[in-house]
Amino acid sequence: MKLSDAGELSLLEMLRKRFGKKSAAVSLGIGDDSAVIRPRNSHLLLTTDMMVEDVHFDLSWTTPFQLGFKLVSVNVSDIFAMGGDPGFLLLNFSAGRDATLAFFDGFFDGVETAMKKYSISLIGGDISSSEKVVLSATVLGYAGKYLSRKGARPGDRIYVTGHIGDAACGLRLMKTIRKKVAIELGRKHQFPLPWEVASPLIERHLMPAARDPHSFKKKATSMIDISDGLMIDLSRLCKESEVGALVYTDKIPLSDELERAASYLGLSPLELALGGGEDYELLFTAPAAEKVNACCIGEIIKTGLFLVDEEGQKRIAPIKGYQHFKL
Amino acid sequence: MKLSDAGELSLLEMLRKRFGKKSAAVSLGIGDDSAVIRPRNSHLLLTTDMMVEDVHFDLSWTTPFQLGFKLVSVNVSDIFAMGGDPGFLLLNFSAGRDATLAFFDGFFDGVETAMKKYSISLIGGDISSSEKVVLSATVLGYAGKYLSRKGARPGDRIYVTGHIGDAACGLRLMKTIRKKVAIELGRKHQFPLPWEVASPLIERHLMPAARDPHSFKKKATSMIDISDGLMIDLSRLCKESEVGALVYTDKIPLSDELERAASYLGLSPLELALGGGEDYELLFTAPAAEKVNACCIGEIIKTGLFLVDEEGQKRIAPIKGYQHFKL
Repeated sequence: MKLSDAGELSLLEMLRKRFGKKSAAVSLGIGDDSAVIRPRNSHLLLTTDMMVEDVHFDLSWTTPFQLGFKLVSVNVSDIFAMGGDPGFLLLNFSAGRDATLAFFDGFFDGVETAMKKYSISLIGGDISSSEKVVLSATVLGYAGKYLSRKGARPGDRIYVTGHIGDAACGLRLMKTIRKKVAIELGRKHQFPLPWEVASPLIERHLMPAARDPHSFKKKATSMIDISDGLMIDLSRLCKESEVGALVYTDKIPLSDELERAASYLGLSPLELALGGGEDYELLFTAPAAEKVNACCIGEIIKTGLFLVDEEGQKRIAPIKGYQHFKL
Repeated sequence: MKLSDAGELSLLEMLRKRFGKKSAAVSLGIGDDSAVIRPRNSHLLLTTDMMVEDVHFDLSWTTPFQLGFKLVSVNVSDIFAMGGDPGFLLLNFSAGRDATLAFFDGFFDGVETAMKKYSISLIGGDISSSEKVVLSATVLGYAGKYLSRKGARPGDRIYVTGHIGDAACGLRLMKTIRKKVAIELGRKHQFPLPWEVASPLIERHLMPAARDPHSFKKKATSMIDISDGLMIDLSRLCKESEVGALVYTDKIPLSDELERAASYLGLSPLELALGGGEDYELLFTAPAAEKVNACCIGEIIKTGLFLVDEEGQKRIAPIKGYQHFKL
């Protein structure tokens, strides 16, 4: 069944039935001109992101479920990056007239799974038609005390919450495999890497989970989520904090899967970690005296951005990462 | 100069300089992972809308200024439709790599003009690249007491805040003129209607201003903004309120320009008003005893949706209006 057979009003009605169950804070959810909530007496955090087919995702390797999950996660990651608790979601969904109801349902299954994971409510949004799939989401959250990119001080340690480079490697893996499949068309396709190596990397790209900072946020002095690349995002944090940083390259946590897949691809796992992007791990700073349950990769200095290798050799860090409107 | 020459970071920097001036309620504006505000102890209203090139607008007849203005207006209209005061804006902008800086600047000139008109602050958003221009906005507002689509009671009068059908006629006018221009290619093009007739209709389509309900909102029992069409939006209000309505067709305010242009197009001005859409006038109900500064077009009854003509003939109202995913 196609979306054009269902009609916009009945799609909205389906969403309303599915997501209409309100939390106590929601006075009015889906179905009016605006949603209405009673905000807490706290800082209100707001973030929004858009995802466009063939720019941010490729439907030939992303399932609608993964897409729905990722759209919510990348926005929740921005709330977590401020030390906040996510609470509410607004969502715009647009797809071609030939899109199927199965696509729509799969997408909202992914959205719902993420909503449950992060304990948030869908309170509004819109459905429309477009040539390609276009999605945008806005997430609201609260923070008694919020963390910004500003606040890192010389002497602070720099931490990340998990493996870096996995998502970027997963993306390159998919591109390479597709190329191979295209070349080998007609021959029986052999998956070129053990599935248990490729799978976590690809999954980290397709449906990243956002990292909740609750265990360390009270100790952190500044924070950002790694969306465009470790070094470009660290440079943003440093710029706002008016400081510099040393990153010890051998301290950057790289997964075994990344090492193996990068070797297969002929790429440097370290380069993937430094500039790959879409990690959705949190990058934060905390005073050296604080014990923090995360991986220390460097320290804040007064000025400059440097990489230090395992032999202690120091070099100016290249600031690489994904930028729209840049080649 | 192209956006790809400027780069995403410098575009964001431009926006930050331009819109960074905060209102007192904004703790953190553009430039971090999330925006931060201190919400009022009041109902918080939230609405979001997406606009996609060649679906919601056509760059061959919309200027970037008009587009920016309209994107903000249609979202503010949803806040006004709840009886709220708009306060904050988040915005996602995406365009092709060949888009010019002039387009970007023109768009944000339109956004800024609307922001000043509605006294709202831009607090966040994102910039990315895409094949076509894709825009989304989220607007937040406050209401001590909000109005929903629910609340109309039999005996209430039905009001609209201004001329209906102008925007729909403006759109059809542009389509027809384009066709004519295409046919008459090579000949000197004569604009087929006096400019003072066509201009307000076209402008109402391209850059509608949202209607502020402050003068009557305390008296209203229910409200909606007319985005998809008078009758379809009235039917939505009736459905939520569990009532019916009589609409007196000779009471629907039609502009002289609409009458003249519809005659030129060979269309019925009434049909354009009933089902045209994109009016962005407010449609609301109020008790018969209340004096209200708006145009009364009918009354709420127990059930059914009817049109009554100037001779008192009553007929079941066709529910027409724009629906995505419907032909």
